Amino acid sequence: MTDTVFILNGPNLNLLGTREPEVYGHDTLSDLEARAHQLGRKLGLSVDWRQTNSEGTMIDWIQEARTKASAVIINAAGYTHTSVAILDSLRAFDGPVVEVHLSNIHKREAYRRHSYVSEAADGVICGFGAIGYDFALQAVADRLGTTQESA
Amino acid sequence: MTDTVFILNGPNLNLLGTREPEVYGHDTLSDLEARAHQLGRKLGLSVDWRQTNSEGTMIDWIQEARTKASAVIINAAGYTHTSVAILDSLRAFDGPVVEVHLSNIHKREAYRRHSYVSEAADGVICGFGAIGYDFALQAVADRLGTTQESA
Amino acid sequence: MTDTVFILNGPNLNLLGTREPEVYGHDTLSDLEARAHQLGRKLGLSVDWRQTNSEGTMIDWIQEARTKASAVIINAAGYTHTSVAILDSLRAFDGPVVEVHLSNIHKREAYRRHSYVSEAADGVICGFGAIGYDFALQAVADRLGTTQESA
Amino acid sequence: MTDTVFILNGPNLNLLGTREPEVYGHDTLSDLEARAHQLGRKLGLSVDWRQTNSEGTMIDWIQEARTKASAVIINAAGYTHTSVAILDSLRAFDGPVVEVHLSNIHKREAYRRHSYVSEAADGVICGFGAIGYDFALQAVADRLGTTQESA
Amino acid sequence: MTDTVFILNGPNLNLLGTREPEVYGHDTLSDLEARAHQLGRKLGLSVDWRQTNSEGTMIDWIQEARTKASAVIINAAGYTHTSVAILDSLRAFDGPVVEVHLSNIHKREAYRRHSYVSEAADGVICGFGAIGYDFALQAVADRLGTTQESA
Amino acid sequence: MTDTVFILNGPNLNLLGTREPEVYGHDTLSDLEARAHQLGRKLGLSVDWRQTNSEGTMIDWIQEARTKASAVIINAAGYTHTSVAILDSLRAFDGPVVEVHLSNIHKREAYRRHSYVSEAADGVICGFGAIGYDFALQAVADRLGTTQESA
Amino acid sequence: MTDTVFILNGPNLNLLGTREPEVYGHDTLSDLEARAHQLGRKLGLSVDWRQTNSEGTMIDWIQEARTKASAVIINAAGYTHTSVAILDSLRAFDGPVVEVHLSNIHKREAYRRHSYVSEAADGVICGFGAIGYDFALQAVADRLGTTQESA
Amino acid sequence: MTDTVFILNGPNLNLLGTREPEVYGHDTLSDLEARAHQLGRKLGLSVDWRQTNSEGTMIDWIQEARTKASAVIINAAGYTHTSVAILDSLRAFDGPVVEVHLSNIHKREAYRRHSYVSEAADGVICGFGAIGYDFALQAVADRLGTTQESA
Amino acid sequence: MTDTVFILNGPNLNLLGTREPEVYGHDTLSDLEARAHQLGRKLGLSVDWRQTNSEGTMIDWIQEARTKASAVIINAAGYTHTSVAILDSLRAFDGPVVEVHLSNIHKREAYRRHSYVSEAADGVICGFGAIGYDFALQAVADRLGTTQESA
Amino acid sequence: MTDTVFILNGPNLNLLGTREPEVYGHDTLSDLEARAHQLGRKLGLSVDWRQTNSEGTMIDWIQEARTKASAVIINAAGYTHTSVAILDSLRAFDGPVVEVHLSNIHKREAYRRHSYVSEAADGVICGFGAIGYDFALQAVADRLGTTQESA
Amino acid sequence: MTDTVFILNGPNLNLLGTREPEVYGHDTLSDLEARAHQLGRKLGLSVDWRQTNSEGTMIDWIQEARTKASAVIINAAGYTHTSVAILDSLRAFDGPVVEVHLSNIHKREAYRRHSYVSEAADGVICGFGAIGYDFALQAVADRLGTTQESA
Amino acid sequence: MTDTVFILNGPNLNLLGTREPEVYGHDTLSDLEARAHQLGRKLGLSVDWRQTNSEGTMIDWIQEARTKASAVIINAAGYTHTSVAILDSLRAFDGPVVEVHLSNIHKREAYRRHSYVSEAADGVICGFGAIGYDFALQAVADRLGTTQESA
Repeated sequence: MTDTVFILNGPNLNLLGTREPEVYGHDTLSDLEARAHQLGRKLGLSVDWRQTNSEGTMIDWIQEARTKASAVIINAAGYTHTSVAILDSLRAFDGPVVEVHLSNIHKREAYRRHSYVSEAADGVICGFGAIGYDFALQAVADRLGTTQESA
Repeated sequence: MTDTVFILNGPNLNLLGTREPEVYGHDTLSDLEARAHQLGRKLGLSVDWRQTNSEGTMIDWIQEARTKASAVIINAAGYTHTSVAILDSLRAFDGPVVEVHLSNIHKREAYRRHSYVSEAADGVICGFGAIGYDFALQAVADRLGTTQESA
Repeated sequence: MTDTVFILNGPNLNLLGTREPEVYGHDTLSDLEARAHQLGRKLGLSVDWRQTNSEGTMIDWIQEARTKASAVIINAAGYTHTSVAILDSLRAFDGPVVEVHLSNIHKREAYRRHSYVSEAADGVICGFGAIGYDFALQAVADRLGTTQESA
Repeated sequence: MTDTVFILNGPNLNLLGTREPEVYGHDTLSDLEARAHQLGRKLGLSVDWRQTNSEGTMIDWIQEARTKASAVIINAAGYTHTSVAILDSLRAFDGPVVEVHLSNIHKREAYRRHSYVSEAADGVICGFGAIGYDFALQAVADRLGTTQESA
Repeated sequence: MTDTVFILNGPNLNLLGTREPEVYGHDTLSDLEARAHQLGRKLGLSVDWRQTNSEGTMIDWIQEARTKASAVIINAAGYTHTSVAILDSLRAFDGPVVEVHLSNIHKREAYRRHSYVSEAADGVICGFGAIGYDFALQAVADRLGTTQESA
Repeated sequence: MTDTVFILNGPNLNLLGTREPEVYGHDTLSDLEARAHQLGRKLGLSVDWRQTNSEGTMIDWIQEARTKASAVIINAAGYTHTSVAILDSLRAFDGPVVEVHLSNIHKREAYRRHSYVSEAADGVICGFGAIGYDFALQAVADRLGTTQESA
Repeated sequence: MTDTVFILNGPNLNLLGTREPEVYGHDTLSDLEARAHQLGRKLGLSVDWRQTNSEGTMIDWIQEARTKASAVIINAAGYTHTSVAILDSLRAFDGPVVEVHLSNIHKREAYRRHSYVSEAADGVICGFGAIGYDFALQAVADRLGTTQESA
Repeated sequence: MTDTVFILNGPNLNLLGTREPEVYGHDTLSDLEARAHQLGRKLGLSVDWRQTNSEGTMIDWIQEARTKASAVIINAAGYTHTSVAILDSLRAFDGPVVEVHLSNIHKREAYRRHSYVSEAADGVICGFGAIGYDFALQAVADRLGTTQESA
Repeated sequence: MTDTVFILNGPNLNLLGTREPEVYGHDTLSDLEARAHQLGRKLGLSVDWRQTNSEGTMIDWIQEARTKASAVIINAAGYTHTSVAILDSLRAFDGPVVEVHLSNIHKREAYRRHSYVSEAADGVICGFGAIGYDFALQAVADRLGTTQESA
Repeated sequence: MTDTVFILNGPNLNLLGTREPEVYGHDTLSDLEARAHQLGRKLGLSVDWRQTNSEGTMIDWIQEARTKASAVIINAAGYTHTSVAILDSLRAFDGPVVEVHLSNIHKREAYRRHSYVSEAADGVICGFGAIGYDFALQAVADRLGTTQESA
Repeated sequence: MTDTVFILNGPNLNLLGTREPEVYGHDTLSDLEARAHQLGRKLGLSVDWRQTNSEGTMIDWIQEARTKASAVIINAAGYTHTSVAILDSLRAFDGPVVEVHLSNIHKREAYRRHSYVSEAADGVICGFGAIGYDFALQAVADRLGTTQESA
Repeated sequence: MTDTVFILNGPNLNLLGTREPEVYGHDTLSDLEARAHQLGRKLGLSVDWRQTNSEGTMIDWIQEARTKASAVIINAAGYTHTSVAILDSLRAFDGPVVEVHLSNIHKREAYRRHSYVSEAADGVICGFGAIGYDFALQAVADRLGTTQESA
């Protein structure tokens, strides 16, 4: 049976491709989603891709993942640095958690260098743009043992 | 006439009983709710028990309490440490406010030791698990003068 | 054609006039809205006045402003001091951004002295109560070049 | 056999009822002691109530509790915030430890917000005045399993 | 009788228009003064416009305002962030005090984010360039009740 | 009737005259006591001079002053910087409180620059050696209105 | 020959008696000066009493004291907390330096608790109002050996 | 022509597989090197794998990369958090720089959360163990445009 | 004549052997005392071994050492980190002072890493359990020149 | 035509040679001025040497330099560490700015280690006494291209 | 078979006896080495004594100790306070680790009070000069059970 | 006899002229060396110019200077901010020590503003590029008394 992976994107990521493309790249969130579905299929993973501007909704989804997903890939965007509540929900999730950021948050403002999400994440990937999600999916596949031969 | 008490529970408390039971105990939130209704009746208080993962909804409910409740008991969970907005709404509530935490937040990570809620609360109870809600209800009854003889 | 200005009000501002009037004044939010519509008309601006207790909704509205508004006036209230996500959404808005606070936040608790919103705002007005919105509208008109002769 | 509970009160609590009654209430320490004995009897607990202005004596008593008491309820007052030595003695006590404060220390000076006692306490109750000791006794009874039916 | 408003400008503001115009605009201090006199007349206020590079002179003028002015508008420039003495003199002035900054000091170096002046100001306006003085005058007129019909 | 003043000296002050005389002077504590009795008589004050190395005893004496003394002069020595409990007892004393230090604590180690005692003291005198007690007595006499003609 | 003492008063002290009398008392600076001259005569000291709002003038006067005065008594008011330059000038003065404050600066805002002046002062007196200058003069007399018999 | 990638490993990484395998995994550094060569070949990259305990040698190698390598992958281990000198050498390298850590450094001691290397890195990967180097190589291939079809 | 060494043990050390033996070892304080007397005899030192839970008593004893002892070995336990008063008394002792801790305080909570005692100690020994007292005695013998041949 | 260099000296530098000569050397400010004129002539620079104790005057002079000088050499002494206003005036000067200190400020009190002046200076020279001004003049000559052959 | 102990000395310890002898004593490093060999023989330990100025070499040696030594005694000198890499290598060593410093680092500059080495050391000895190495060897012998009868 | 001066350059300075020339200038390290030899000859100083990327080698060289050099000029580059060990070796050198930086480190990242080297340096020169070494050599010549007539 196919494992499901929730890929949860936080506030303002829906603007991708239109907002500061020199920082975040020209791909839209839809482009990234399509790419994730494609790679997911190759890795034997079913991708459930979502985006929300709401902290509460993000928590709802992480809780939903407890019964519906084998792994969570999360780019919490602005909530990364401020949400203890999201951290708590991630801690209540038993499977692998991978944190992704499009830009290298360690080169930006001081308040972007601390991530509550990191405390609940198995691994962190930042600064690679769209390809970061590829790595996250591969890492999940590796942890879940679904990695197919060709990866 | 019976006083109504809002008991407002914040993010991830709906997972109670299933998440880290060694920390939070085996009671589910429903168990706690039932217990609160029962004790409320003994104390002459009508309990309105709610839970939300959304900061905005929590604020809506605290504002609602201004006209519908005589007291607020609040376990803001992860929002305890980060929400100035919840603090502001509690300050706009005139009746007694009691803050409850299931675990002793002072023994945990540094960022859990500060509570914005405490600045608006009359009293704080933490570390007693489910029984903490009992104390909160008794404190409310005491403040409202509804304490019945046998308590 | 008339420029539209979003005036976005954050948590607990719906309580205006009823909560700590000695601090925030006796005007209700409706009074302020009426006043803003009136001045907007004088300045050749169409005002879209909103209030929400939800951080996510605030972000949705700021994103909506990207296509529907020429300027944003924002009083983020309690989220001012804690929301990196709102800051990010404001940074994705190209037009003028004016930050308003009814009270002088620099005279209050230490945690109210820092504003994430300020990092994305062109200008900040605080401590003038209702009249602060007038100034914000005038500043927007000035930036957009709609200022009519009599201002 | 009846369990004994030490209720240990720190510096200046002997002034209760005469010092800032608007903060600490009008009950004297004797009133509180009588109330504790009464509730103790109902809960099947023998209360040993003490007060001292001396940090060393407080430590002696906590050590004494190791052989003579099943639980310790402690209001360390001013020593709460400064005594590593009291914390160490509490850590050497195996039974339940409940920390009580009459006022809500989180609303007071910054140096009152940190409690060394909390690091060794199972639970903390503050801001409820005299009734806080009732909750502490009930919590102890609950932990020791002596809670009688009617509580 | 006409109310007098002192508009007191601090160090380096005499360079306005010639120093970093992309930050501070192309208007000279004389341009701003002329504009203030004009608006003052409309608002029924007599404007006394001054500039000094000296902290002591600034204090002398604020003290002078106690008998000669109904309100003080102050842009203390570099002294904003370092002068407890100016703060003390402002506290000794009974009328409205409005703080103005041409640039948005919250977007600049960390040491420009704290203002001693703000602790004594009724309201703060920053980031709007020359128009900020207009708002300050309007706010003063509003407080003094001199606001004329057309504003 | 003669007012009584408690002059309470903290830890290690009994070593005066023998310990670091270049810092603390050559007078012994007895010399200072004799001098205080003499000046007290001139000022119409009865001096009760004490010294203890014990924080608890210091608190006992401050409490005793509530009924036996009209004023307290305190040199809490090493406890000055660490004792919230002594601060609390001083706050429960209604009469004038004067803090004295023989050396100028502001020129010494950083941890000697903060005094909890100062928060409860009407005035502070430091750096004058033995003569500091004279000033303290005069200040007390002035507050109590016992100052005799010749002072 | 008579020793001269400079008594140097900093910014806003010229407002004494008219500004916040509940904090600073009803005496004017002239009253204090008269009192100082009178006590100076008794102590065999010639008092040169000055006040300035200017940091530079204060430094000029301290430098002048190097040749014209045997001691300096200084109340640097708002410059106390911010002026390294005044500290440097005091360090270049060889005679006794006494720091005076009318109010107890340790009970006020955090930024008033640190004094650069204290680093160069032999002793500090604060919180006693006008009488603090008396103590300062007595201390100077004591250091200079001019103390007359009756003091 | 084939691009060369330097993979530079810092202090104690030569102990891999033998030191805390529950944290760092059972693979030895040789295992990782073999794996990197294999993936490098697939990606059209020539891997130059090195390890040193010396900060100076690490800097020598990064400088060497300026002429011999198209990209640098670096796991600076303990020097990550303390070496400004390594940061400076990385800044003098023009090609892509990828930072790798085997463990999630954000979940460890506070002093491991800050990385000087991150300030010069395009992207950061941590917490994935050996597979992290795979991602780093893929990222490099992507940046250099050597990514072959099957990746 | 034989030199006397005071070995002064602070709060909770009387619990040794019964409290967290995995941290502090199985030896009781009596075992340590016997061992110290035995080694003292070999080194030509008379050991005066004491323990107290009282800060004041500890200070009394250190003062007593001024006339009765040639050296002080001190394990101030919990007072190590909080007592300026003990530091002051140690500074008034002229002979060698050696600080001992059974556990390595640098591996524990942050507040245990700072020792006021260390500022007055010639040397510090921590983490060796009972044998640490042996080293302290040898160090004292070495300083006093009583070290006998066989040590 | 000869370039003019302003050499601006701050508070207390007029005391040079008489104040702490072991720190600042035996040369008076006049000695330094003569030396600067002499070297200036050799370098083809006209030196305008000034000293003031007033922050405002220092700012006036820096502003004056905008039209009258090609470069500014500044030793702001005590204002170095506290004056944002001087920094602002230096930023408005377009030519080379060289900061000089006679002593090595980095070896002194912590508050002397930060220099606002440095943020506007091209280069900083400290710790060389009088010769530091020579270097500053040479640096200015080098920047202005007036360096004559023999330097 | 004889256990080997590595005694590893860090930067500048080769200067011992010639550098600040009043701080570090007159013994040279060779004197200390001879003394350590002699005591080692008595304790049944083979001493391997080394010194290096290189952080990398220190790490190499600690790694070498994993197979060649039963214990490590380390005086990391200046690297004590800055090297996470040395800490990591010590953590990979299974036997006893003893940290030695000749001077009492807790009485020196603030940056010398924190030791990364301490986090991996079983015990710490500082301030005793050469004799500290004796204690370290005895402690090692005690831990390894080689302590011979006469020690 | 000619005095020898060691000019010691730290990590990455070998890249000079090729790395960020807009910051560090176009001169290579060889250019600087040639210039130093030339000026050295004029000043009667023999220059020994070195560069290393290794902290340990830098320390070796500073120790070597104790017997071979009369003065040390050091640009420790990245080690400036992190090396206590280099500071210690400089403190063991008796002659003049001059610190040089090509850029003005006070205008760069916060972690570049603190220099351990400065604590051991007689003087500091930064921000003048290559000419800074000239000043350092002149300062050394001045201290050593070798300054020839024409300088």
